[in-house]
This record gives sequence, C-alpha cells and structure tokens, in this order.
Amino acid sequence: MAEPFVYRLRVRYGECDPQGVLFNANYLAYVDHTITEMWRAAYGGYTAMLEQGVDIVVAAANLRFLGSARFDDEVTIEATVTNLGTTSVSTAYRFLRDGDLLLEADLRHVFVDRETATKTPMPEWAREGLMPWLVAATAGGSRA
Amino acid sequence: MAEPFVYRLRVRYGECDPQGVLFNANYLAYVDHTITEMWRAAYGGYTAMLEQGVDIVVAAANLRFLGSARFDDEVTIEATVTNLGTTSVSTAYRFLRDGDLLLEADLRHVFVDRETATKTPMPEWAREGLMPWLVAATAGGSRA
Amino acid sequence: MAEPFVYRLRVRYGECDPQGVLFNANYLAYVDHTITEMWRAAYGGYTAMLEQGVDIVVAAANLRFLGSARFDDEVTIEATVTNLGTTSVSTAYRFLRDGDLLLEADLRHVFVDRETATKTPMPEWAREGLMPWLVAATAGGSRA
Amino acid sequence: MAEPFVYRLRVRYGECDPQGVLFNANYLAYVDHTITEMWRAAYGGYTAMLEQGVDIVVAAANLRFLGSARFDDEVTIEATVTNLGTTSVSTAYRFLRDGDLLLEADLRHVFVDRETATKTPMPEWAREGLMPWLVAATAGGSRA
Repeated sequence: MAEPFVYRLRVRYGECDPQGVLFNANYLAYVDHTITEMWRAAYGGYTAMLEQGVDIVVAAANLRFLGSARFDDEVTIEATVTNLGTTSVSTAYRFLRDGDLLLEADLRHVFVDRETATKTPMPEWAREGLMPWLVAATAGGSRA
Repeated sequence: MAEPFVYRLRVRYGECDPQGVLFNANYLAYVDHTITEMWRAAYGGYTAMLEQGVDIVVAAANLRFLGSARFDDEVTIEATVTNLGTTSVSTAYRFLRDGDLLLEADLRHVFVDRETATKTPMPEWAREGLMPWLVAATAGGSRA
Repeated sequence: MAEPFVYRLRVRYGECDPQGVLFNANYLAYVDHTITEMWRAAYGGYTAMLEQGVDIVVAAANLRFLGSARFDDEVTIEATVTNLGTTSVSTAYRFLRDGDLLLEADLRHVFVDRETATKTPMPEWAREGLMPWLVAATAGGSRA
Repeated sequence: MAEPFVYRLRVRYGECDPQGVLFNANYLAYVDHTITEMWRAAYGGYTAMLEQGVDIVVAAANLRFLGSARFDDEVTIEATVTNLGTTSVSTAYRFLRDGDLLLEADLRHVFVDRETATKTPMPEWAREGLMPWLVAATAGGSRA
C-alpha cells in the first residue's frame, strides 16, 4: 500500500470568513496547492510540465466537508493517486487537524496539449512520476 | 417545472490565473455568491437567517468543469433547489457563457443552530422561501 | 470640476475575514475591479489595450482605512484621474457606504510595452479616454 | 541596528493573475501573513492578543511595486518595526527574490479595544514583544 503524499500548511487569516473558519472555496484552493507540490515531487513541477508542451486542467472535483479548519490551524493534507488513466489522473485528499478528519476530496485532472488545449495522453514521465502515490483502486472506485 | 434562480456576474482579473481563466477554486466561490443572492430572494438573506438563530454550512460540493470562464466574461449562473430535506438543502448550478455550458455543480448545505453549531431542522420560512426553485427530483437524484 | 467615475459593488461573504469585515487586501482588489471598469468606459477595456500592444502595471498604491465595509454592504467607489504623466496615470479612490467614507486610496499605474515589459509612453487614445475623469491637481499633489 | 523579522513563502498558482505574476492585491495579503507570524514571535500570536481583550486593525498601507513575483517563486519578506506609538505600530517590509527587491511597503496598525472597537493604548506586552525588530527612525521617517 502506497504512502500518501503529505503537505502541511497553516490557515491564513484572510482565507477565513466571518464564521471564523476557512471559506469553503479555499479548501479547493488548498487541494490545488497540494497537487502543485505533488507535481514538484513527481516530475519537477508544473512549469517543467509546461516546458514539455503539456498542460493540465481540472475536470471534476468532489468535496465532503466533515469539520472546519480555523484561522492558524495547522492542516495536514494527505494525497494519493487513485487512477492513472490514458489522459487523466484521479487523486484523493484527506485534510486532517490533530487527527480529526476535516475534508475528503476527489479530483480528476486531464492532460491537454499546451498549444491546442485538447486532450493529450499522459506523458510517460508524468505516469512514472505519479506512480509512487498510486493506491490500489477500491471496489467502488470510478475509472475515468 | 420551476424556473431557475438566475445570477449574473463578470469575471474579475484577480480571480483568473496564469492560464488566463477563472482559477478553479473560484467557481466554488461563485456558487457561494449565487446562493447568497438566492437566500436574499428567498427569505431576506444570510444575515436575516442568523438573526433567527440558524446558520448554514456546506456539507458537500461536486463540480464538473466543462469549459473555462475567462477574464471579463459575463457568466450566467442558473440555480435550482433539488431537494429540501429535514436539515439539509440540495442545490444545482449551471454556469453559462453565451449559451455554452462551463460548469455544473451540486451542493448540499446543512442548517445548524447558531449557538451550538449542531444540525437543526430547516425552519419553515426557509423551506417556503426556497420552494419556488425546487425542481422535481430526477430518477437518479440523491436524497440527503 | 470633473465628475468621478462611479462603480458600485456588494461585499461578498468570502471576501470578509473573521472580524466580519472586508479583509484589508481586498480593498486593493476592489480598486483593481474599479479601474478595470474605468478602462472599459475610457477605451473599451483592458483586453482592447493589450490588442494595441500596451499593458499596464501598478507602480504604487497608498491606502488609508477609515471605516470597515461589512458583508453584504453596498459600497460606492468614486474614482478620479489625478495625473496623466508621460508613461504613468495616477488615480484616486473614495469608498463610501451610505455616505460614510470607508477608504481613500491613491494608485499609480505605468504603461509598458506588452512584448518587452518596459515603460512606454501613454498612447493618445488612452490619454483621451481617461481625460473625462481628470481633476485639477491639488496644491500638494504629487506628480509622477 | 535590529535584524529584520524574516518570513519566507512560495507564490501559489491561484494567487497569480493572467500576467503570470502575483496579483497586486496579494502583496498586501502577504504583508498580512508576515505580520501574523511576527505577532506569533512577539507575543504568542493574534489569538493570544484577542484573549487579552485587544484587537488590531490596519490604518494605512503604502506599497511601491519594483518587480514582480511569479508563480512558484520563493519570496523572502523582511519586516521591521519603524515606530511604536501610543496606540499604533508602524512596520516596514521588503520583498526579495534571489536578492532582487520586488516590493517595499509601510503599514500602520492601530490597537483597538475588542469590545468597543475604539482605539486603545498598546499593551506593554505588545510593546516589549515588538521591540526586537524596532529600527532607529530615519531622518525622514513619519511618526504616527
């Protein structure tokens, strides 16, 4: 079983709303920060990807809110790769604070040609780079 | 068949990213702006809700990205209520630009007691206020 | 005396912080939204400017916070042009809510060549477009 | 001569705009992130301040943009205290990337009573906590 990719960040004041908690859209931004770091670890980062002529866009995002991150909380985000398709990569996220699960998220990104913005097969170096965090698909897992 | 609640906004420069399009997390923020306006139309707004002792939190958000909103685009967001549960309300969103569908989203919000932050039944005035945009559930629709 | 350019917007929930007021950096974002609309009125907008081969960047921003905009407040922003220099344009802003002055700001933007990103003279169409909101310089006014 | 307080952060993708650089309002947000960390180092942080019955608000912000931080840049922010007044604290910031100066900023914050939101003298623990980063005023330095 693969270990998740782990990213930690601290909740910023301006990211919180009048309820005193992280504004809901910012959880999705946190996922984006996390995958940026995963790409860095996997194959040198987003800019390196662009230099190879491929870009990547979000196709789907599903979030389940289970608790609230508050200002100054240190949040641990565990990310895994749940599927490596032909042109897409699926990832899953767990947001934890002191062991409490705050959010679960599933994302699907699609590789696109940087010039034409149309779907393109995932490059082999991307597939290999993301492999370390690939977990065995669960029975009910969707396959893009 | 109920007419959707319609909200229009223009994409701001600082909401776009280096791809020149609306940053993915900001679609979820746009949903939040839309539901804020729906609440205003339904029962006088979020602050009026708080004054009645109830607050509301996001429980789940599912987004499917079909196109990209760009800087200065005028986006029309159509929102409907897909379910009025005991303590939760489900809503659906379609983001359109010149007739092109850019995003579909489904959200579930839960009513909570403002003091205790625990689930509370949806007040009758909220149910009545949201009724005008309630659409008949589709066969495969989830029920919270 | 020139009339100011007037832009109105409503404070969004996710733009506010746990103090319940507009997060300080978002006042600067609001200035940006306002100047975007002024450019639209002046010469067709930012994209039209890019198509002419010129871009524009912020060189300086000074903000004085006098009050707080809160969630759902309708804020009126009055903008004037305080100087049209060779390569730069200076603008001033007043944020009002029900007649209360919440913020004063002064900005200086510089025109740059879109390709080289170096300073370039303000095009004549930009100068003419911005002229309607040019106010007579006050004695102590700075000149860039 | 006091050493500055140093904070480092990496520019996030969603913080950048279609010019490919950090959106101008986000520099002010970065100042806020920096002072949050300075408060933590000075006296245990913003929440500890609130627990003592005092809050703090921005009164003025002046920014001079000298260069552009780009996506993924590591930015070093040097912060100093330039004045400890009766009710206000003035701070100065330098944003650096690989030794290049990107931004200079001056901020003035005012201490307020948490209940009444009116000005209140800076507590002694706040003054002592901020002292390590107090630099001698320069001849032309403003005094609030």
